[in-house]
Amino acid sequence: MSEEVQTTGRAKRLPRAVRERQILDAAVQVFAQYGYHSASMDEISEVAGVSKPMIYTYLGSKEDLFAQCIRREATRLLEAIQAGVQPDLPPDMQLWYGLRSFYRFVAEYRESWTVLHRQALVVGGPFAAEITDMRKRAIELVAALVVSAGTRKGLAEQAEFSGEGLSAALVGAAESLADWALDHPAVSDGVLASWLMNLVWLGFNDLVEGAVWKPAES
Amino acid sequence: MSEEVQTTGRAKRLPRAVRERQILDAAVQVFAQYGYHSASMDEISEVAGVSKPMIYTYLGSKEDLFAQCIRREATRLLEAIQAGVQPDLPPDMQLWYGLRSFYRFVAEYRESWTVLHRQALVVGGPFAAEITDMRKRAIELVAALVVSAGTRKGLAEQAEFSGEGLSAALVGAAESLADWALDHPAVSDGVLASWLMNLVWLGFNDLVEGAVWKPAES
Repeated sequence: MSEEVQTTGRAKRLPRAVRERQILDAAVQVFAQYGYHSASMDEISEVAGVSKPMIYTYLGSKEDLFAQCIRREATRLLEAIQAGVQPDLPPDMQLWYGLRSFYRFVAEYRESWTVLHRQALVVGGPFAAEITDMRKRAIELVAALVVSAGTRKGLAEQAEFSGEGLSAALVGAAESLADWALDHPAVSDGVLASWLMNLVWLGFNDLVEGAVWKPAES
Repeated sequence: MSEEVQTTGRAKRLPRAVRERQILDAAVQVFAQYGYHSASMDEISEVAGVSKPMIYTYLGSKEDLFAQCIRREATRLLEAIQAGVQPDLPPDMQLWYGLRSFYRFVAEYRESWTVLHRQALVVGGPFAAEITDMRKRAIELVAALVVSAGTRKGLAEQAEFSGEGLSAALVGAAESLADWALDHPAVSDGVLASWLMNLVWLGFNDLVEGAVWKPAES
């Protein structure tokens, strides 16, 4: 009891935003390790070094906490990808940098990706809707790239027609490979991104002919 | 009450396997429409025309029923894809027929796909494991195709190294496009399959150059 008071006392000196970040960091870690259903608020409280009553006061129930983890990690992931993309480069180089940022994020924040991709869908309900929404935004980002690549080549109409479907396929390919990569941590983000570039930019046909896509020298 | 007795009486004349199929058909329909949590055994009983006690006797609880729906639909889907593929054709034609079979299945059995892809992951737990297992088998099938395409071209080693990752990406792309197609029912299975062929066989680079993959004349 005195320990809890002490923790609370220490914690009080930190601004609320910092405390909330500590709680969310701990929650992501605990949810990734145990899964939503087995994760306990006691464990999150211990990892965060913040008392349970304070967690409830600041961020609400376990369900609220999980929703906020998903929202924060999804935003972080999309921002990391967008930050990696340089909009004045040709479309293939934009895709290359976007993919590298994506796989670097997955490698660095395995727990974020686990919570986003594996846990959120398993828990379902409103969380699945949150993920669906994030996927939609990712597909829109890629579709803009496909349409701009097509327009450059005078194929705007075809790109408008098939762009969203192709982008949905590409996002699914990137996610599925990221999921595979969770079980193959020795494969680097550069290798993963180049596999996907070779698949979606050049295609199997070029691959089996021995053609390989390489990033332009910068 | 008398109606239930009558239904049971009528149903008794049918062999057990037929009755079980009726129940599973009804369950897939009800799960796809309402989702696992909101689906009721009353509704399934009504749609199947089989009394609730008989459903429990034959196929067990709602959870058991859902597990059996997933297993049956997953097997059906993989069999439909395998039946569509003609193993003596070149790899691109095998992929083309496999994809067409897949998208035809999704269009014809929207409810099966909804239960497999949208519901099972949302419900989670052991069902998610079932789906993970099905995805693994699909990835292995595609990997065999990639490796055989690579080996034909004397690239066996590269194909072995990257084949599984590329196949995970391809399966993710196909699933994600199928999910997109649920919301765009006007796009035919042939169009969906050809988008994916153009994406993964030729790649964006060929696409924006105006090259288009077409199935060989048969």
